[in-house]
Amino acid sequence: MNILVLNSGSSSLKYKFFADETVKAKGLVERIGQGGAARITHEKTGADKYQQEAEIANHQVALQMVLKLMTGPQYGVIEDLKEINGVGHRVLHGGEVFKESVIVNDQVLAQLEELRDLGPLHMPANIMGIRACMELMPDVPQVAVFDTAFHQTMPKKAFLYALPLEVYQKYKVRRYGFHGTSHRYLAKRAAEFLQKPIEQLKMITVHLGNGSSMAAIDGGKVIDTSMGLTPLEGMVMGTRSGDLDPAVVPLLCQKLNLTPAEVDNYLNKKCGFLGLTGYSDMRDIQKARSQGNTQAEDAYQIFIHRIVKYVGAYTAELKGLDVMVFSAGIGENDSQTRADICRELEFMGVKMDYQKNEGLRGVEANLSVADSKVSLLLLPTNEELVIARDTVDLISK
Amino acid sequence: MNILVLNSGSSSLKYKFFADETVKAKGLVERIGQGGAARITHEKTGADKYQQEAEIANHQVALQMVLKLMTGPQYGVIEDLKEINGVGHRVLHGGEVFKESVIVNDQVLAQLEELRDLGPLHMPANIMGIRACMELMPDVPQVAVFDTAFHQTMPKKAFLYALPLEVYQKYKVRRYGFHGTSHRYLAKRAAEFLQKPIEQLKMITVHLGNGSSMAAIDGGKVIDTSMGLTPLEGMVMGTRSGDLDPAVVPLLCQKLNLTPAEVDNYLNKKCGFLGLTGYSDMRDIQKARSQGNTQAEDAYQIFIHRIVKYVGAYTAELKGLDVMVFSAGIGENDSQTRADICRELEFMGVKMDYQKNEGLRGVEANLSVADSKVSLLLLPTNEELVIARDTVDLISK
Repeated sequence: MNILVLNSGSSSLKYKFFADETVKAKGLVERIGQGGAARITHEKTGADKYQQEAEIANHQVALQMVLKLMTGPQYGVIEDLKEINGVGHRVLHGGEVFKESVIVNDQVLAQLEELRDLGPLHMPANIMGIRACMELMPDVPQVAVFDTAFHQTMPKKAFLYALPLEVYQKYKVRRYGFHGTSHRYLAKRAAEFLQKPIEQLKMITVHLGNGSSMAAIDGGKVIDTSMGLTPLEGMVMGTRSGDLDPAVVPLLCQKLNLTPAEVDNYLNKKCGFLGLTGYSDMRDIQKARSQGNTQAEDAYQIFIHRIVKYVGAYTAELKGLDVMVFSAGIGENDSQTRADICRELEFMGVKMDYQKNEGLRGVEANLSVADSKVSLLLLPTNEELVIARDTVDLISK
Repeated sequence: MNILVLNSGSSSLKYKFFADETVKAKGLVERIGQGGAARITHEKTGADKYQQEAEIANHQVALQMVLKLMTGPQYGVIEDLKEINGVGHRVLHGGEVFKESVIVNDQVLAQLEELRDLGPLHMPANIMGIRACMELMPDVPQVAVFDTAFHQTMPKKAFLYALPLEVYQKYKVRRYGFHGTSHRYLAKRAAEFLQKPIEQLKMITVHLGNGSSMAAIDGGKVIDTSMGLTPLEGMVMGTRSGDLDPAVVPLLCQKLNLTPAEVDNYLNKKCGFLGLTGYSDMRDIQKARSQGNTQAEDAYQIFIHRIVKYVGAYTAELKGLDVMVFSAGIGENDSQTRADICRELEFMGVKMDYQKNEGLRGVEANLSVADSKVSLLLLPTNEELVIARDTVDLISK
């Protein structure tokens, strides 16, 4: 089956085209509707990259250009749009409504509209992407795959904040968690990799990228995760503060003279590694550390410290730990981070093969020594593949 | 030595009078400067309670009345104020300036004034109490004992938030932690109780009252604690939310139309148990649970769940755990809470003597069975005693 996977951001459109589970083409449209020139980067597997700059007013126009490339003579992978069996869309927020992926119909669209408020930065773009596809490919089924869905198994004690109950009832304020598609992929893949039934595994999946999150997964079901109502809570991230005394927020409003919307933007865009060091990318942090930059050293130590705290907390929630999985940009590529986390956890029987770990990037590997109480896995994540699979599953029903 | 211990709140004055380590009298003045009638409750050890209502304009007037009672014929414990060797004051915030207790002089007073901003609710009252004593007992040494001081051994990775560095440098925004005097008392007492050198113990002290906090204490030194810049962060408390996605705060401002100062008040006064159930007191929560109130059940489960997470996190930070101490209002009196926490921790070798624990209140006891990996102690806290001791130590130097 041919599946197009789409990730629509506020001014971007990322895509991957799968024939069964093989990626035939992928690409990215950036700076959509920003007035200036947008840029398309398209890559047919095995061929050269194609780049073009053009003014692109909206997601529908962007999608039209992508579909044209995909059916064109030089960079195309199909001859006609009818060969696309389904489109899978990454959608940020499924609220409490969507606990799994779903074929989009009018009712689903209406429900998505109601969830706009929970993801004001992403949901409008996600919905725009779906609508554009429905216009351009009216006969092709559209599937929504939610970043929150996998976390919907969390029990109330893990998802409810200690706020007046009407704040949950009326405004749906609770922990949702994100990166669910990645955590789901990693949990399933870890069980396969270890050739053990997922039902028997207590697992912590550590997704460390520019945005980072962790999940405690008991027998394949999430019981807690570090991101909250929004992706701001939890780890130290590229530009996000993560956990904070809530009283710091009104204090920042007062001291820095920020409105509520501005402080939200500040905490999401100006904090984390960027705020502590001036760098948002872990590669820059590591370089600066190696040059003796004490701010980078402090930021890195805070980052590791907080991950270790979450591992401890989740081990207590799981009542033990069998598997820890490292993934995403930092988790897949930064062996130093993986080693420094595991060194702190030796007291609980974590034993890493530090030599094997050293320098390993973006491959599947078991990083633990044979008598480690916890299996330590390096697994590259693959959210698009999960979206493609969900799309196939739903349209084959 | 005769030591008066004072805790000045914004409209209250609590006191205890020690002769050496024996409490000779104690009392409370409430509703100071509120316009209506204030109330004094005074109790000489072994005698009846004395109560009086009167208009009391400020802390100095309140203190005058207390001192008069203390030297009076019927409820007095001394004949002349000169018999008071020192006054120990509980002070909320020592910032990064005060890492231990200190005799108050003009320089210290000036430094306290500079710390007002870090504790706008408590510091003005604390300072007022000290100034009133200096006026009325100019020759008696005044000692300040800080709620934050014991936590000042935390490493940077535990106290620094992932905010732009200038927010720490300019506004001193960082984790401080509170209840330090209680945690200090509990750590020292736990080591004495177990007859082990404190230097060798990895300890978690669990102070569960109307305000709650936990501390990870390694060899007698705090390495992390749950309260932050303010007492809002951490556990689910009587009326405080504790941990929260920071993005919830601006959202509450928008949805509930609150200013930054109002949302701070909301999170401190309307949330926690009160917000979830309508009750702020654990006794009411337990009663409601026993009557099948599902909101109370949920709130209790969230409360326990969060404590268990912190125990896991702190065990990871400590790289093991030897002792866990329960104390303060809930910790000393609610055997159900203690049992439910320990039941969740059995996976890590925690073994409680549930029968012994049952119904035990306000006494010192070892609640673990002999082969528990972790000693579980019930220890009533005694912050005033620590303040009296610090005062004696400093004025005897």
